[in-house]
Amino acid sequence: MIILGIDPGLTCTGWGVVAKSGSRLSHVANGQIRTNAKAGMAERLVELDAALTDVILQHRPDTGAVEEVFVNVNPQSTLKLGQARGVAMLSVARAGIPVAEYSTKLVKKAIVGTGGAAKAQIQAMLMVLLPGVKLAGEDAADALAVAITHANMLGSHR
Amino acid sequence: MIILGIDPGLTCTGWGVVAKSGSRLSHVANGQIRTNAKAGMAERLVELDAALTDVILQHRPDTGAVEEVFVNVNPQSTLKLGQARGVAMLSVARAGIPVAEYSTKLVKKAIVGTGGAAKAQIQAMLMVLLPGVKLAGEDAADALAVAITHANMLGSHR
Repeated sequence: MIILGIDPGLTCTGWGVVAKSGSRLSHVANGQIRTNAKAGMAERLVELDAALTDVILQHRPDTGAVEEVFVNVNPQSTLKLGQARGVAMLSVARAGIPVAEYSTKLVKKAIVGTGGAAKAQIQAMLMVLLPGVKLAGEDAADALAVAITHANMLGSHR
Repeated sequence: MIILGIDPGLTCTGWGVVAKSGSRLSHVANGQIRTNAKAGMAERLVELDAALTDVILQHRPDTGAVEEVFVNVNPQSTLKLGQARGVAMLSVARAGIPVAEYSTKLVKKAIVGTGGAAKAQIQAMLMVLLPGVKLAGEDAADALAVAITHANMLGSHR
């Protein structure tokens, strides 16, 4: 089973793909999608959609999961984040792939064992869980963490 | 020139299409898209995208405009609204149609002459500006107001 995790953002969206075979997890790919900050909002959303669609066509995930974004204290930031997140969810769901949602806290708990884990702890655990993985950046790391969380949840539902 | 206006929302998205010929405006169509409140977020966004894409294919707008949504005091509501708005902008822009954005205040000012106009005043002016128009609802009325605002702005840029 191929699992796609996404950590959405307008400036930078992280994505990570893992494969699950029985209880064994392996890394497939990860990356980050940056949109042109000088372009208009609609254009940036089209860029994000096109890039995510490429990832989906290339890796053909069976299922996807999106991180529940941090709800900023600034409503304008929250709105922008919502726009990117809506597009990310659409890109996956439009391809007929189910999309789950996990809170940052749950992802941290699933990976490190505590909901208050630091980013460095998450990344250290990713190295253990996905030996040899090269992380494209912080957002890609968060996306892989979401994908692993989803993989574990799928296992526990069986 | 065919102009599409959109008032985005997850529960209900209004849309309105007007035609501009010289300085003459006429009503083409308006409607509301409701998504299934019992469905998951991703599914609702797919519904919204599919319905808006139908509107675009049917009316072939040359240009589009989206209302800048009211930023709610509740961050979760703002996030949901952002998700719907992101999908609405993407649906239009992905079809190669430019998307403008107008604040509610500017739309009210363009239609009624004052940024503090009530919804009833907007709707009364729509009846004057687009004789014989039948409004599908409040959100469709707001979407037509956005389309007219955009039509006027396009005129003033020439």
